Amino acid sequence: MDIKNVSALKTRQYRNFPMVPRVVFGSGSFDHLGEILMPKRSHSEAPIIFLVDDVFEGTELAERVPLIFNDQIIFISADEEPKTTQVDVLVNRIKKEFSELPSGIVGIGGGTLLDLAKAVAILLTNKGVASDYQGWDLVHRPSIYHVGIPTISGTGAEVSRTTVLLGPERKLGINSDYTTFDQVVLDPELTKGVDKEQWFYTGMDCYIHCIESLNGTYLNAFSQSYGEKALELCKEVFLEDLSHSESRDKLMMASWHGGMSIAYSQVGVAHAMSYGLGYLLGVKHGIGNCLVFQHLEEFYPEGVALFKTMLEKHEVTLPKNVCANLSEADFDTMINVSLNMEPLWENALGKDWQKTMTPAKLKSIYQKI
Amino acid sequence: MDIKNVSALKTRQYRNFPMVPRVVFGSGSFDHLGEILMPKRSHSEAPIIFLVDDVFEGTELAERVPLIFNDQIIFISADEEPKTTQVDVLVNRIKKEFSELPSGIVGIGGGTLLDLAKAVAILLTNKGVASDYQGWDLVHRPSIYHVGIPTISGTGAEVSRTTVLLGPERKLGINSDYTTFDQVVLDPELTKGVDKEQWFYTGMDCYIHCIESLNGTYLNAFSQSYGEKALELCKEVFLEDLSHSESRDKLMMASWHGGMSIAYSQVGVAHAMSYGLGYLLGVKHGIGNCLVFQHLEEFYPEGVALFKTMLEKHEVTLPKNVCANLSEADFDTMINVSLNMEPLWENALGKDWQKTMTPAKLKSIYQKI
Repeated sequence: MDIKNVSALKTRQYRNFPMVPRVVFGSGSFDHLGEILMPKRSHSEAPIIFLVDDVFEGTELAERVPLIFNDQIIFISADEEPKTTQVDVLVNRIKKEFSELPSGIVGIGGGTLLDLAKAVAILLTNKGVASDYQGWDLVHRPSIYHVGIPTISGTGAEVSRTTVLLGPERKLGINSDYTTFDQVVLDPELTKGVDKEQWFYTGMDCYIHCIESLNGTYLNAFSQSYGEKALELCKEVFLEDLSHSESRDKLMMASWHGGMSIAYSQVGVAHAMSYGLGYLLGVKHGIGNCLVFQHLEEFYPEGVALFKTMLEKHEVTLPKNVCANLSEADFDTMINVSLNMEPLWENALGKDWQKTMTPAKLKSIYQKI
Repeated sequence: MDIKNVSALKTRQYRNFPMVPRVVFGSGSFDHLGEILMPKRSHSEAPIIFLVDDVFEGTELAERVPLIFNDQIIFISADEEPKTTQVDVLVNRIKKEFSELPSGIVGIGGGTLLDLAKAVAILLTNKGVASDYQGWDLVHRPSIYHVGIPTISGTGAEVSRTTVLLGPERKLGINSDYTTFDQVVLDPELTKGVDKEQWFYTGMDCYIHCIESLNGTYLNAFSQSYGEKALELCKEVFLEDLSHSESRDKLMMASWHGGMSIAYSQVGVAHAMSYGLGYLLGVKHGIGNCLVFQHLEEFYPEGVALFKTMLEKHEVTLPKNVCANLSEADFDTMINVSLNMEPLWENALGKDWQKTMTPAKLKSIYQKI
């Protein structure tokens, strides 16, 4: 999870949280996609557009996408984090190619594809460009019907009310009630072919989020109960010896509950620091959190200890000397970006967080990475 | 929870589960009801109708109901379980009194009031009488916007896709996608004044449901994760020494998660038998489950042991000799009603359940009650 959670601060006294109104769970449930979409088709000229991670190009999954009429699959690389300009290009392409607005947008992939699907669905009915809507509750027209189908578990993007995009000026979510998917299909079988490291880093996105929010000062019983369940499931998946199928099922549910726990919670130190790392070096979200989190024993002693056990068990080696050749100016940039994440710091360390988290302290942690 | 869960059997391979699309959690959140309803008011002639448990008549809560224009509060007793005829009377009264369909129906109370609100919202837009819709997916027109606000925790009615009604011929839910609330407000403070026994029995509705579904054969990882969390919260509430406020928060979340776990699960022996008890003697749902459950060590050894600890800790004494003066014909009636709940038995005991659960066996358990 990313800085989307900053939104929690603004409204933590009272939030009317939008939940995904429809969910299917189960291995093989992807095969029901055709019947799920059918009643949403306004007519044969209004296509369903499937945004699919390009790792699936030419695979069996791509063949199972239920294309009819003038539906289209657009394969998209998830190698880089999603950008506002990428959303604008997609929206223009769809508007140009079809005489009618689509009946629906379906995102199939990890956090990147899910976030793109959400943003495209919003921009198809809202004027201007994607960067106009980065922020909180700036979207005023309902988005196109959109469906999220995760093929990797951990980001919580399938259930959140944000889509985090790299804009011309900043990386920031389009946080709105119209962002949330109208339908989610949770088919654990779709996560079968995921690369081990990506599986680990994305799972840790969920794990670290839970540690941060459960140890934060903002929590209430709603988010606590979801966060605790997500954490428990992460522990089962990464510390116990489950069957592959059970492990897939449980990590998918961990991501779901972890995403739900966002409703009334906030992330903390790892996310605040990882954001600096991502901004300066383009480090991707999942691995960035891990790089920072390993050095946060002081703040999350139990969480970090367990994290190290998980690393060992799964023989994952984190990159080293990531910050070795950075200049003073580079450190200052990261420190400034990170210290700007006030709600995260306040959640983690309380109102007086600035007394604990000085620029010098931050630098000393970055230097270890 | 009640036999609403029978529906799970019919579709347990694949279900597109409707979730409550909007939820607010937090003590004091009831005070935001006015602003929540405002955008749903179609115009000043289309009222919001508040169905409120009559224990709140003349209390501070009733004064906090945000009435404007021609809105109306209807106080309703929850002493008896909700009936289809009661729904019909309410719908006719509302149709007669107002020239326009209401903008919304708000149920404030326990399972009875929540179920009535759901059913009234359906019958205002669907022809005929409530009993026409008892069953699965018989409702074809969207219901009126409806809001659920629980004032006692445990039934899961706030999150389920059914409304269980006593009809002319049978007690059965209106199970449909249009049954689910459009909005739920979870304000734990509203459960402050609940009578201890009612608090206990309603909480046990959630607890027993969890034990049955987690020990059942139908479970998948989705329902398991919700059920486990609900069970954990029940244990905290009924076995640990939480503050009053924490206890209210956690029981409200237990009910919520317990209700969610219905999506892909089913209840078992206690519910199947309690149904016979309710049918013959009119025993209310919460206490009926407890009366049966205490004698089910054979099927749920750990669950029953913990239940007895809970009874003791909270000094609740269950009624005795409930079945003492029943005739053979009475026992036969209960046994027949109970054995008819096939999906519950299959979930509890597997496909060969009839070998274990003979009429004689059932009778021997009923005789203990």
